[in-house]
Amino acid sequence: MRSILIFLAVLGGLTPFTHGQTPELHLQHTGDSTYIRAIYDEALARGEAHANLRQLTKDVGHRLSGSQSAFDAMQWGQGVLERYGADSVWVMPVMVPSWTRGTVAQATAIINGEEHPLRVTALGGSVSTPNDQPLRARLVHVKSLEQLSQLPPDEVEGRLVLFNRPMDPVLINTGAAYGGAVDQRGRGAIAAAKAGAIGALVRSMTHALDTLPHTGAMYYEEGIDSVPSAAISTVDASWLANQLKGNPDLEVVLEMNCRAFPDVEQGNVIGEWRGSELPNEIITLGGHLDSWDIGEGAHDDGAGIVHTLEVLRILKALGYTPRRTIRFVLFINEENGNRGGKTYAARAQEDHTTTNLRYLAALESDAGGFVPRGFRIDAGDEATALIQSWNSLFDPYNIHQFRRGGAGVDIGPLKVLEPRPAMMGLSPDGQRYFDFHHSSQDVFENVHKRELELGAATFAAAVYMLDQHLPTPGTFD
Amino acid sequence: MRSILIFLAVLGGLTPFTHGQTPELHLQHTGDSTYIRAIYDEALARGEAHANLRQLTKDVGHRLSGSQSAFDAMQWGQGVLERYGADSVWVMPVMVPSWTRGTVAQATAIINGEEHPLRVTALGGSVSTPNDQPLRARLVHVKSLEQLSQLPPDEVEGRLVLFNRPMDPVLINTGAAYGGAVDQRGRGAIAAAKAGAIGALVRSMTHALDTLPHTGAMYYEEGIDSVPSAAISTVDASWLANQLKGNPDLEVVLEMNCRAFPDVEQGNVIGEWRGSELPNEIITLGGHLDSWDIGEGAHDDGAGIVHTLEVLRILKALGYTPRRTIRFVLFINEENGNRGGKTYAARAQEDHTTTNLRYLAALESDAGGFVPRGFRIDAGDEATALIQSWNSLFDPYNIHQFRRGGAGVDIGPLKVLEPRPAMMGLSPDGQRYFDFHHSSQDVFENVHKRELELGAATFAAAVYMLDQHLPTPGTFD
Repeated sequence: MRSILIFLAVLGGLTPFTHGQTPELHLQHTGDSTYIRAIYDEALARGEAHANLRQLTKDVGHRLSGSQSAFDAMQWGQGVLERYGADSVWVMPVMVPSWTRGTVAQATAIINGEEHPLRVTALGGSVSTPNDQPLRARLVHVKSLEQLSQLPPDEVEGRLVLFNRPMDPVLINTGAAYGGAVDQRGRGAIAAAKAGAIGALVRSMTHALDTLPHTGAMYYEEGIDSVPSAAISTVDASWLANQLKGNPDLEVVLEMNCRAFPDVEQGNVIGEWRGSELPNEIITLGGHLDSWDIGEGAHDDGAGIVHTLEVLRILKALGYTPRRTIRFVLFINEENGNRGGKTYAARAQEDHTTTNLRYLAALESDAGGFVPRGFRIDAGDEATALIQSWNSLFDPYNIHQFRRGGAGVDIGPLKVLEPRPAMMGLSPDGQRYFDFHHSSQDVFENVHKRELELGAATFAAAVYMLDQHLPTPGTFD
Repeated sequence: MRSILIFLAVLGGLTPFTHGQTPELHLQHTGDSTYIRAIYDEALARGEAHANLRQLTKDVGHRLSGSQSAFDAMQWGQGVLERYGADSVWVMPVMVPSWTRGTVAQATAIINGEEHPLRVTALGGSVSTPNDQPLRARLVHVKSLEQLSQLPPDEVEGRLVLFNRPMDPVLINTGAAYGGAVDQRGRGAIAAAKAGAIGALVRSMTHALDTLPHTGAMYYEEGIDSVPSAAISTVDASWLANQLKGNPDLEVVLEMNCRAFPDVEQGNVIGEWRGSELPNEIITLGGHLDSWDIGEGAHDDGAGIVHTLEVLRILKALGYTPRRTIRFVLFINEENGNRGGKTYAARAQEDHTTTNLRYLAALESDAGGFVPRGFRIDAGDEATALIQSWNSLFDPYNIHQFRRGGAGVDIGPLKVLEPRPAMMGLSPDGQRYFDFHHSSQDVFENVHKRELELGAATFAAAVYMLDQHLPTPGTFD
């Protein structure tokens, strides 16, 4: 009964929307709050995000850039976009790296002749151990790149570096705690090689004391030796550090046969829904289709992909007519290169130069399928103020964060456009994110149906509000 | 390094606190924000809530009122309160019901001679099936008590009623969805008996489509037959309803040997920390120690118990000197009687009449160990406005709900006091709560360490703010 009433209210509310130049006029428009309520109802009562995530994670599986399953995921995404009624669906080609984890990633501590297996996995992009053979070395234990650089050479040369600085537990924003520790993963191998070490073990990026190695991107620098680098579980990292106190001479045997192959052509999958009123103004939204190759990439970023698809489904189900052109983008290669995002922005730059297409706004969901809290806003002052003025419309859905910050890695490169698009990143609660992130536990079962649906609805409501109320570029900013 | 700086800031900030009559003067006091930051740091870096919850759920286990394990829990709680340095610890005696689930709770659907087991459990307080023997009957399927009351007698008499109205998925507040469905559980047996039915099966109170029966309190009415009432899993309830379409004559066999025994004396466990400045003004905080007898009562309400204990530990660790007397109360018998809460309020009423003790404020945590969102405030207009004015102090911790509403079942009876205490209920995110609530899955493993710690810190910060800034009763309200 209640749903029917809302549905009628929505039908009634659609026609009288007006689209003047002064967004303030519409802020508290009854039509907006009614429409947003209808979006949440649709997501919660008839949502398909959870079922889509099951398909992506269970039928396709994990989807590392360059892999066959990344191709499969592209095909799956095209199919859903077509089924949900995008006007056109195409692939924007992107050359992506092709790195494989290989078949072996193991490490053992040798203490007084006894072998203690350690839980490790290769960091993404790492070279193998020399000739794919086991490497045996003593350890040097540090908490930072800086500490390593200050050690005397004889304490480092020929050893494996154990980078063991935990994520700071007192930071409320877990992303900030990640940001404060992840230099060890990204640049640990470079720092190790510079100091004369032959490889690196990096404490996994998670608050949890668990036995899971969490992988992630790492880098090399030209002119500095490429040494192997592996993630080690937090339990094993703490245990090793403790063992070192009594057994400073303990050795670790590390063996990995990961390998890089030539780049492969894959691409961003794009579905477009043409605007009825201002079709040359583009609202982009998306997540990334690629994932790491352990787990199923359920939160990272299967959730963002099904959020994106669900926005199309919800707005179609409500009979919405977009004013602007809405682009649903399933980006490729966020994890180890961001070439999908960079390619999309390069094309947008061309469009700005050679056509009348204008990239009005961009939204990203790449922080998991958890209960939504709000948005990270990356926009000019006036667009930011406009978006922040929507907070009372979102309050009934417990959406309260309208903070400035990085809106997302994939849409980030669009920042260079003039006029600059207004960018919003969906911001779910982050307390559990790093339990799963880049690990074997980032699987479908660890995504909560209602939380995923609330994220999709919140994403859809933001798209709706931008489409309705964001002024044409140049009219402010 | 950062922690040391904060610690020094806290030490520096303690002395200059002043306690005037005008709370507004202190609202944005740097000391408050510094102190609250120290509270969160203590909870997140050195928290014991998670370890305490492990003890309560694993060493003690579930703790139904009147059971031996409820006695064990009381003893455990006294021990922790003493160890954490309460000035005095005592038990306030409470006579509690003593109901046991028994050894058998099973149901089977008989369809065309074939038996299909159903997942059921007795609702709390239910009588057994007659003479503890199986009862066999046809079903009548309804979505509400009202619908049942309107059916012709021959469609109900001698049958089992299947109450099958789901919790409304579109309500954002899952507690409201629970409130909109739980009359079936509480009053289903009464309505069934009134209409001539011989028992009730009630769809479990959860949004999840799962195979778990979720128990909970149910009631009888004098003068109306007491018929047995069981919870049935949502999957089985939906399956049965579907089977009934093709097989309206299907029968269900129900067997339960639950039983009520005479009341037993247990009690509220109370730890008191004497105020330094206004010791006759009491701030009560608590959760409930009893739980249902399936699962481990981890979220409901082990979380509230360890939140309460952690407030004492945190404030002691920071060297806090309370102005008012703080009472840490581990209530008994919230689940099936609320006699602990009622007894506590009756004593408070006596104190108001016969002593100069004044119950200034009361706080409760009984909504799970999930990431905190804010508070439910149940207070006069001025106290509510004061508490709501603290929102910017809590914003860095993602605490944003300062809504009026029921603060809690255990502290609820304190409402009758004059002057009325200001009451606050901790409000964690509720999307996952009913996945676990009153089921076998309400176990330690389903409580997240950081989320639990954030709840404890939020609870402690509210106690601190009330102690510092809530005016003496009568100065407003």
